[in-house]
Amino acid sequence: MCGTDGCLVKCSSVPCATPENDTKDTSTTINLDHGDPTMYESYWRKMGNKCDITFNGDDSLSYFANGKSLCWFLESKLEEQIKRLHNVVGNAIVDDYYIVVGTGSSQLMQAALYALSPADQLEPISVVSATPFYSSYPEVTDFVKSGLHKWAGDARTFEKNGLYIEFVTSPNNPDGVIREPVVNGNQGKLIYDLAYYWPQYTAITSPANHDVMLFTISKCTGHAGSRIGWALVKDKEVARKMTKFMEISTIGVSKEAQLRAAKILEVVSDSCLDPKMENFFEYSQSLMTDRWKRLRQVVMANDFFVLQKYPLKYCLFTKDFCESHPAFAWLICKGREEEDCQKLLQEHKIHTRSGRRFGSDLRNVRISMLSRDEDFNIFLKRLMTIQGPTNGN
Amino acid sequence: MCGTDGCLVKCSSVPCATPENDTKDTSTTINLDHGDPTMYESYWRKMGNKCDITFNGDDSLSYFANGKSLCWFLESKLEEQIKRLHNVVGNAIVDDYYIVVGTGSSQLMQAALYALSPADQLEPISVVSATPFYSSYPEVTDFVKSGLHKWAGDARTFEKNGLYIEFVTSPNNPDGVIREPVVNGNQGKLIYDLAYYWPQYTAITSPANHDVMLFTISKCTGHAGSRIGWALVKDKEVARKMTKFMEISTIGVSKEAQLRAAKILEVVSDSCLDPKMENFFEYSQSLMTDRWKRLRQVVMANDFFVLQKYPLKYCLFTKDFCESHPAFAWLICKGREEEDCQKLLQEHKIHTRSGRRFGSDLRNVRISMLSRDEDFNIFLKRLMTIQGPTNGN
Repeated sequence: MCGTDGCLVKCSSVPCATPENDTKDTSTTINLDHGDPTMYESYWRKMGNKCDITFNGDDSLSYFANGKSLCWFLESKLEEQIKRLHNVVGNAIVDDYYIVVGTGSSQLMQAALYALSPADQLEPISVVSATPFYSSYPEVTDFVKSGLHKWAGDARTFEKNGLYIEFVTSPNNPDGVIREPVVNGNQGKLIYDLAYYWPQYTAITSPANHDVMLFTISKCTGHAGSRIGWALVKDKEVARKMTKFMEISTIGVSKEAQLRAAKILEVVSDSCLDPKMENFFEYSQSLMTDRWKRLRQVVMANDFFVLQKYPLKYCLFTKDFCESHPAFAWLICKGREEEDCQKLLQEHKIHTRSGRRFGSDLRNVRISMLSRDEDFNIFLKRLMTIQGPTNGN
Repeated sequence: MCGTDGCLVKCSSVPCATPENDTKDTSTTINLDHGDPTMYESYWRKMGNKCDITFNGDDSLSYFANGKSLCWFLESKLEEQIKRLHNVVGNAIVDDYYIVVGTGSSQLMQAALYALSPADQLEPISVVSATPFYSSYPEVTDFVKSGLHKWAGDARTFEKNGLYIEFVTSPNNPDGVIREPVVNGNQGKLIYDLAYYWPQYTAITSPANHDVMLFTISKCTGHAGSRIGWALVKDKEVARKMTKFMEISTIGVSKEAQLRAAKILEVVSDSCLDPKMENFFEYSQSLMTDRWKRLRQVVMANDFFVLQKYPLKYCLFTKDFCESHPAFAWLICKGREEEDCQKLLQEHKIHTRSGRRFGSDLRNVRISMLSRDEDFNIFLKRLMTIQGPTNGN
């Protein structure tokens, strides 16, 4: 039955309305603005008590962690499980990299900007990313009007005089496209945001080995509430400065969150290696494949919307060719340039994020594909009913 | 026996050397630079499984919390226990206050600066605090060279033309003194840092009711590793801006840390109300009283050092007169102005924080009183042997 665990894989590829979700259907706006990864709950529920972790009253009182890492607040168990998972999945090189843990990858973006910005510059360094770029980059770069760095917009139109920092997001948020640096200046520093470089979203084509790479447990396993991200950093001095940022900003990262994240990552790796367990990435890829299939069907049946297409690529992890199934759908409304797709969907009680927020235009919206089943089903049902704007205003 | 749990209360008031701590004694520098509150471990160990909290794999995946708070990531259980504890202790008014949770109170300092700095100013607002001030204030104010606010040093010498923000730390870090605002200008905004306004450190003389008040679990219960702080905020718009800061900076605060903090605070409140339980604040006050008594004895027997004195005050919580027993000792070396007390103690393998870091002079050092018993005992033993600098250089 639809709207219950595992339904999306089993049931037919059209959205279905049940008496339960009909209640919500008429009254509530579905929030697909954030990429809140509640879709993964069903997997973790199935795991039963395999991931249980208990904290006693006298655990983890100290600011310091038990490890010997340059990042003095990084729990060694988490360090170990991060390295293990990257080795199991094959999506990043970890040998000879320093690991810096953060309160989600947002904090690590700021830490990386801090570490890569020259302290002795009179002018703040320019920070760019190619449109459509992750909507938080301008905000995290500029929110306290830092004199170290300033947002300089679209990497494609950036005039490469002097120093700059480029965010390279691959697969890209919002549109899921695999990316390379765009500016190609000789004084550029790159921050690779690899939050979505996991097998459920895209083919793992080679282990990434860039200077600064950011990951987050939110988009890997779905544990967004834990606020755990990590950076793999090649240069010791950059890792040291990022650690310093974390020290001033929050005096480290919650030990409970780190130790639970270690446990969750351990189970994910185990699930990939132990044939008796349900492989987390196979399970989540299957959910994503089904959701994308159903969304494409609705969009194809409708003249008004277009979706991004993705090439088939060979995945070293699944050992098969696969298409991307990004965490977000980048939906384009056909029609005039001033068509406000976000507003249109909002009128149909679907809350999404406007293309404008990503440096793109009003005709685009980003839609989370990671909601709970019930919300995803209602979303498709509502999307089916949209036949374009009701008037030309 | 010394060096074991509860020893400080039971054993005599002179530091004692056991074969165990003699091993560490000769080889290792004792780190009393940070206020790492590991002293409280013994209490929490005694509580056994009363504070146990278990997380299942499918708990807390979402970014959002389950509450209805303006602070959308604040867990309602934590909100409830924060309010309950303040009511039990009587150290702050909570009715009609908004609660904003942070990754430790450091992050909330930045959130408060962000919320109180006018966004439309051409010049950054001046941030001040009276010397000796908490060594992190200049750093958190200036580390990303914000255009919103800038550190302007000692509140006592600040020329009050125009807007400013003053940090009022009471009891003060580093010297434990009860404080009031110093600048007294009519365009000032105040941030009350009340991290140490708990019964083990000082008399609770009245419930605080300032516009912005910061607290942290680190110094209240000793759970520094959790990185949980909270702000009590009177004005809705300020609370909303602080929440916005947290959203951009880290997209909220770890749910595991929040839920565990809620459990810990619950047990602390219970311990104050249930006569069958050992009252947390009585226990920790007794440890602090003993440590301070022993430290004062060592200092009195030595011509070279002086300690801050504190008046006896009536505590509404303990219903008794009591002296302050701050989390840090503010030790002053007698002698010439250029005497470097930090360096002197470092030569005796006691790592402390120099008065210079607090806007004060070299003759002062801040020493954590919250270490484990073993380290505190070694500290006193080493301090006893110091007879002033070995030469006049």
